[in-house]
Amino acid sequence: MSQLVAVGTVAFDAIETPFGKTDKILGGAATYIGLAASHLSVDVALVAIIGDDFPQTFLDLLKSRRINIDGVAIIPGEKSFFWSGRYHHDMNSRDTLATELNVLTQFDPKVPKIYKDADVLLLGNLNPEAQLAAIAQMTGPKFIVMDTMNYWMDNSYDALTKVIAKVDAITINDEEARQLSGDYSLVKAASKIQSMGPKFVIIKKGEHGALLFHKDQVFFAPALPLEEVFDPTGAGDSFAGGFAGYLAKTEDFSFENLKSAIIYGTALASFCVEAFGTKRLTEINHSDIQSRLSMLKSLIQFDIELH
Amino acid sequence: MSQLVAVGTVAFDAIETPFGKTDKILGGAATYIGLAASHLSVDVALVAIIGDDFPQTFLDLLKSRRINIDGVAIIPGEKSFFWSGRYHHDMNSRDTLATELNVLTQFDPKVPKIYKDADVLLLGNLNPEAQLAAIAQMTGPKFIVMDTMNYWMDNSYDALTKVIAKVDAITINDEEARQLSGDYSLVKAASKIQSMGPKFVIIKKGEHGALLFHKDQVFFAPALPLEEVFDPTGAGDSFAGGFAGYLAKTEDFSFENLKSAIIYGTALASFCVEAFGTKRLTEINHSDIQSRLSMLKSLIQFDIELH
Repeated sequence: MSQLVAVGTVAFDAIETPFGKTDKILGGAATYIGLAASHLSVDVALVAIIGDDFPQTFLDLLKSRRINIDGVAIIPGEKSFFWSGRYHHDMNSRDTLATELNVLTQFDPKVPKIYKDADVLLLGNLNPEAQLAAIAQMTGPKFIVMDTMNYWMDNSYDALTKVIAKVDAITINDEEARQLSGDYSLVKAASKIQSMGPKFVIIKKGEHGALLFHKDQVFFAPALPLEEVFDPTGAGDSFAGGFAGYLAKTEDFSFENLKSAIIYGTALASFCVEAFGTKRLTEINHSDIQSRLSMLKSLIQFDIELH
Repeated sequence: MSQLVAVGTVAFDAIETPFGKTDKILGGAATYIGLAASHLSVDVALVAIIGDDFPQTFLDLLKSRRINIDGVAIIPGEKSFFWSGRYHHDMNSRDTLATELNVLTQFDPKVPKIYKDADVLLLGNLNPEAQLAAIAQMTGPKFIVMDTMNYWMDNSYDALTKVIAKVDAITINDEEARQLSGDYSLVKAASKIQSMGPKFVIIKKGEHGALLFHKDQVFFAPALPLEEVFDPTGAGDSFAGGFAGYLAKTEDFSFENLKSAIIYGTALASFCVEAFGTKRLTEINHSDIQSRLSMLKSLIQFDIELH
């Protein structure tokens, strides 16, 4: 079975939305990535760090989805990364209430030996130094995807550009693409970012969908219009996990196949937002996903004859 | 030939963008609607009001596109409607620098006799009382489309709801749909607006595309990612003009055909923004439009086998 290595956070989240609030629940980019990718029948391994306060039930949940967690280091006497946020009524903006890095400050990713030759490496949003350390341990992945955010552009620009130069694809939101490139036009921004390294630039626009740029080609994936967005936490990571999971499964890194991978990512993200945290990602099955792919297909289907 | 009647403003615009500024140029909702629809080989008539300060060259330009302007009243001694605005760097927001209603305050639309039995009536963004007056003059259009904006929700809510109750389709932007319905979710907003009258609700999201809702069906039309947006003025009206023009031409008011109509509207809007004012709408030809439709088709084309 094809292998996917996902490097990122495994953490506690506490979330408030207009619909309610949670205590400390299972969160973290690698968690969402792993759960989303686990629906693609690939061999997923997480590389992360937690404290010994992390409940065994959370780890068991990951294992029950056949996710390998040998690369999740447990640091005795230390606390796990914790993030807390409150979403505004529009669900597109949020206030961070707490960010306790805890063990994350000493994260030195260790890719398990049997995963060093995995085909696909997904670098979740993390310190670029940690992303570089993970890349260095791989024996030659066929495809590397990275996620990042404006914080690293502001605080670790040089290391960030080193990672960007080494990856095949970057996922980034529209505002961050503008910041990274200095161009307001997303078409120009994507072109400039391609010149920094990645052959593929994926611009995430949340409820407005996602754009995939490759050379002079562009693909647009719509987001599914949802009656209710319950909790957007992890949507971007679920998208990345579905995307990278599909690539690992198919081992086809063409523009055409990346388009399909983005549609899988979109489908998985659309489930993620339907309930707090990771809940929906652990409930859905193959036929749920197929039905959502079919909804995405018909959402944009039109028939115009050109002449 | 099928007839389309468009009621709206014919006006002067003065526009500033980060790329430059214009003197008083040809503008107004009905102008953009008419020019966009004129590319669909339908018989378009404008119903509007201007002062005697309006240059004959502007009227000649409309006539050169075979647009009927018998319904454009010219009021001696009065000045035409004038709007001036400055776009911000992001091109999504703008400041209004001047709004001189002038003749618009006395607009009492008169549909020319030979157009009263037109199949399609498009009500541009206008005082709802004027929109009602136009509807009352028609002998039984097969399809009525209306555009509106938040100003009328704030200032003429009762008359506005009377128009909404009489139309088949409404075009409205996402913020306005939320304001009109009181629902943040666009899916719920569209459902509530349908219960006010229109069988079809079209939510315009600018650079993020447009959504068409009808009963429990939804269609998403992407906007074309453009390297440069030069001047967004008139994009929404060009969209509406392309949409209504296609409907008038095909005389098919099914959900499937409305999808195609929206793609035509999207294509025409994508030209509109490429230069100041109406310039591009007067330059393009059939094959330019066909080529853009083909770009829109391939922009969203993907191939996933469901199983």
